[in-house]
Amino acid sequence: MLSFTSRLVEKAVEQFATLPGIGRKTALRFVLHVLRQDKASVETFLAAIRQLKELIHECKRCHNIADGETCDICADPRRDATTICVVENIQDVISIESTGQFKGVYHVLGGIISPMDGVGPGDLHVDTLLQRVTAQPAREVIFALGATIEGDTTAYYIYKKLPRRDDLVVTTLAKGIAVGNDLEYIDELTLGRSIVNRIRFSL
Amino acid sequence: MLSFTSRLVEKAVEQFATLPGIGRKTALRFVLHVLRQDKASVETFLAAIRQLKELIHECKRCHNIADGETCDICADPRRDATTICVVENIQDVISIESTGQFKGVYHVLGGIISPMDGVGPGDLHVDTLLQRVTAQPAREVIFALGATIEGDTTAYYIYKKLPRRDDLVVTTLAKGIAVGNDLEYIDELTLGRSIVNRIRFSL
Repeated sequence: MLSFTSRLVEKAVEQFATLPGIGRKTALRFVLHVLRQDKASVETFLAAIRQLKELIHECKRCHNIADGETCDICADPRRDATTICVVENIQDVISIESTGQFKGVYHVLGGIISPMDGVGPGDLHVDTLLQRVTAQPAREVIFALGATIEGDTTAYYIYKKLPRRDDLVVTTLAKGIAVGNDLEYIDELTLGRSIVNRIRFSL
Repeated sequence: MLSFTSRLVEKAVEQFATLPGIGRKTALRFVLHVLRQDKASVETFLAAIRQLKELIHECKRCHNIADGETCDICADPRRDATTICVVENIQDVISIESTGQFKGVYHVLGGIISPMDGVGPGDLHVDTLLQRVTAQPAREVIFALGATIEGDTTAYYIYKKLPRRDDLVVTTLAKGIAVGNDLEYIDELTLGRSIVNRIRFSL
C-alpha cells in the first residue's frame, strides 16, 4: 500500500489512476513528473485536455469527432463520399486512417448491437447512415466491424435495411491470416476462412 | 503512424504522451477515455493536477513535499525526530513510508552527488541536514541511498561532515538478498555482502 504523506499528491494519484490501464504506482510516477515540470508545461497539458473536452464536436454527417461542424474527412473534397466505411467507434476511424489505405468516408455507429450489454439497434446511428446512402447515392458500403457475433449481427441488421440497388455494393473486411503470422499459430476458423476466400497471387 | 483527423485530439495525445513511459497509442486511449467521461469528472481530474502544482510546498524542515509549511511526517509528534533518514528524493520517502517499518523522520537531499550529471554537494540540501543534526541533537542518521557509486559517494561526503559525537550513530541500509529471491539469481557482490553482514537467525 503506497503512503503519500500529502493529500494533494494522493488526490492527483487517484485522478491519474482513473486513466485506463494505470495503477497507483504509475500514477505516482505521473505525479512526480508533474511536480518536476515547470508551470507553463503543466498549463499547456491541462489546457489541451480542457479544450479537447470543451471544444470537440461530433461530425453532423458521420458522427466522427470533429473540431468544427463536420470532421476533416467529410470536409475533404478529395475523399470519395460515395464509399462509406461503417465502423463501431472513433478509435476504428483512427486505426483505418492510420493504414493510409482508404480514401472514402466513414460512418461511426457509436456502438455495436449487443443484447448482453443492453445495446440495441436504436442506440446506434443507423438512421443517419440509411439517409446518407440514399441522399447522395452511395456506391459502396463497407462493414468494418469486429469479427465477432456482435459485429456480424450489426452488419446483418444494417444490411437488411439498406436499399436494394444494382449500383450499391456492400462489402466487409477480408478475414484471413495476419501479415507476418506463421500458419501454426492461427486458429482453425480464421485459417479456414482464409482458404475459402483465397485471392489471386501477385508479386 | 497514427492519424487523428482532429487537431484537438492530436494536441491532447501529444500532451498525454509527455507523461513518462506513455507512447502515442496509450495517449490515444487516455484521450478516448476523457471523451467518454462526463464533464464533471474531467474537471475533477484537471483540478487535482492544477492544485497539486499550485498548492504544494516543500517542507521547510526536511524538503519533503508538504501540503502546508511542514510535511505531515515532520508535523507528527509521534515520529521520532532524533532519527533522521537521509534519502535522495520524495519518491524514496514514499517507498520507505509504504513499508510501514520506519518511525523516524526524513531528510530529502534533492539529488545525489554525480559528477557525470553535473550534480555536486552544493546542489543538495546538505547544510540544512547538518543544522538539523546539531540543532535538535540527533541520535541516529540513516543513509537510505541507492547501492551505487553515487549513493556511496554522497553518504561518504555527508559522513565526513557530520559532527563526531559519541551519542550519534550513523547507519546505512542493509545490503543482502531480496525477500523471496533464490540464491542462484543473486549477483556475487550482493551475495558476498549478505554473508559478510550475516545476522542472527530468528523465527
